[in-house]
Amino acid sequence: MAGAFGFKGCQKIRGPQIRSLLDAKDFFLFDCDGVIWNGEKAICGAAKVVSALIRRGKNVVFVTNNCTRPRDNYLHKFYRLGFTDVTLEQIFSSSYCSALYLRDVVKVRGQVFVVGCDGLRRELQQAGVAFVEEADDPEATIYDCVLAPGVKAVLVGHDNKLTFLKLAKASCYLKDPECLFLTTDNDPWHPLSGGRILPGSGSLTAALEVASGRKATVIGKPSRFMFECISTQFSGVDPAQCLMVGDRLETDMLFGSNCGLDTMLTLTGVSQIEEAQEYRNSELTANHSLVPDYVVDTIADFLPAFEELNEQSN
Amino acid sequence: MAGAFGFKGCQKIRGPQIRSLLDAKDFFLFDCDGVIWNGEKAICGAAKVVSALIRRGKNVVFVTNNCTRPRDNYLHKFYRLGFTDVTLEQIFSSSYCSALYLRDVVKVRGQVFVVGCDGLRRELQQAGVAFVEEADDPEATIYDCVLAPGVKAVLVGHDNKLTFLKLAKASCYLKDPECLFLTTDNDPWHPLSGGRILPGSGSLTAALEVASGRKATVIGKPSRFMFECISTQFSGVDPAQCLMVGDRLETDMLFGSNCGLDTMLTLTGVSQIEEAQEYRNSELTANHSLVPDYVVDTIADFLPAFEELNEQSN
Repeated sequence: MAGAFGFKGCQKIRGPQIRSLLDAKDFFLFDCDGVIWNGEKAICGAAKVVSALIRRGKNVVFVTNNCTRPRDNYLHKFYRLGFTDVTLEQIFSSSYCSALYLRDVVKVRGQVFVVGCDGLRRELQQAGVAFVEEADDPEATIYDCVLAPGVKAVLVGHDNKLTFLKLAKASCYLKDPECLFLTTDNDPWHPLSGGRILPGSGSLTAALEVASGRKATVIGKPSRFMFECISTQFSGVDPAQCLMVGDRLETDMLFGSNCGLDTMLTLTGVSQIEEAQEYRNSELTANHSLVPDYVVDTIADFLPAFEELNEQSN
Repeated sequence: MAGAFGFKGCQKIRGPQIRSLLDAKDFFLFDCDGVIWNGEKAICGAAKVVSALIRRGKNVVFVTNNCTRPRDNYLHKFYRLGFTDVTLEQIFSSSYCSALYLRDVVKVRGQVFVVGCDGLRRELQQAGVAFVEEADDPEATIYDCVLAPGVKAVLVGHDNKLTFLKLAKASCYLKDPECLFLTTDNDPWHPLSGGRILPGSGSLTAALEVASGRKATVIGKPSRFMFECISTQFSGVDPAQCLMVGDRLETDMLFGSNCGLDTMLTLTGVSQIEEAQEYRNSELTANHSLVPDYVVDTIADFLPAFEELNEQSN
């Protein structure tokens, strides 16, 4: 697939090219971590970019695999970091979409066992999806604990309170072939400050895949499902008019490819341009789906294009 | 590879054939769980078989991927369940062999970070291998906890006290490419009573492999290393004279194949004969290494052969 403005593959673009791209697209999908902020720090200029797009009548949505917060909590974060034009309807998180999937797609009947944070449970609750509530009993073991009846799905996400017992219970529920096995996302790890890393949902999912001998259905990027949620909410979304902007080749760029969107890698997060070039030069065709159409240093590179447009309209 | 007494592949053997096999082999390797006992219950007749072999001057060793107990604790279990002829030198566990590997093969300098039970740490201690000692601090997080300096290996085993923080710390240590990454074994799960299952070391290892982007070195079966430990301790072990008896195709039978040993599946544990036949009939050549040469219902099927031998010698 060739990008609209050049041969596909890591095209580093600037001023006029960015301006053409802004003219050509009317739907912008942004990943959050590493794209518009890093932790509690907004990427410099990102809030202005988002505001300018919205003011110009572009559709803007946020597509995040971060499943630790419910959407209303995200909205607070957007406000706190200066993204004051953002509304709840623009936020698509893997936890929100997991709740939609369970409620609307598979119409789960029975309880969901959650390996994940409170934010994930909160999304289920808001969607009216029943889940197993349990008190932490530090003395309980998989040998003698109670297993909840009627568990019809195991949903895995990032879980900073993971214990062996949770893993073991989930493994037991998954022995029932009628119990669904879902993961919010397959992100392997996330960067922390000081060079530390945080195992992601993909790490916990792998543990359960091995223990159960099953493969999880992935809700978040790079699976297409989040784009289906967006298309349901915003009728008439044309993939050809969309730009997916992200910082991770294996999730964001692949998600864009899977959904038929043009893709842009921003270098303020996890992936480096050299990795993208390696994928581009790879002999494995599958790797080409990980190659962004465009690359920018930061989404703040959009700003001069808006200024030009402003000057023209003055 | 053809077994000594027939075309290779799931040969169910009885009386006279077992007697010929007992005559032909002088070194018997037994897995423990599912072969000589299940949990705290000895397989009926297993203790007699072990005694009879030892009395007849056969070498008998126990090769277990169970890494939760130190060897002296295993010895108590052998006694408790009636295997009173067994000595410490006959017991090769994946935790013991992990300690040998760290001390004698890679000669680790620095501390080992253990994701595992106290039994695993005890083996390291007895081998003089230093490991990170840490108090459980329920308030600590990967964002603010102290990481130990000089960690030169992460060793993963079954860990019923696994927490997210342990996984996260291990992931951080593994960012250093000079930090070794070992697992006692890759067993995916273990059966519990009542149809429950216990995630195995392989499940936790998978979580860390995904989080670190690295592959762990496997110490236990099906890796050859445990057989190397046996060969070091018992000089002159001839693989052609060995019989590996186990209950799991993916670990025990593959271990035997990898080490050039004849293999016997006993049906008192995890794997079923149908699974072995599927592997035998598979078009994937690699699957043929999982096929046992011989199959018995239980190792108590050895007993009539001894009785015949007794009658002859009377």
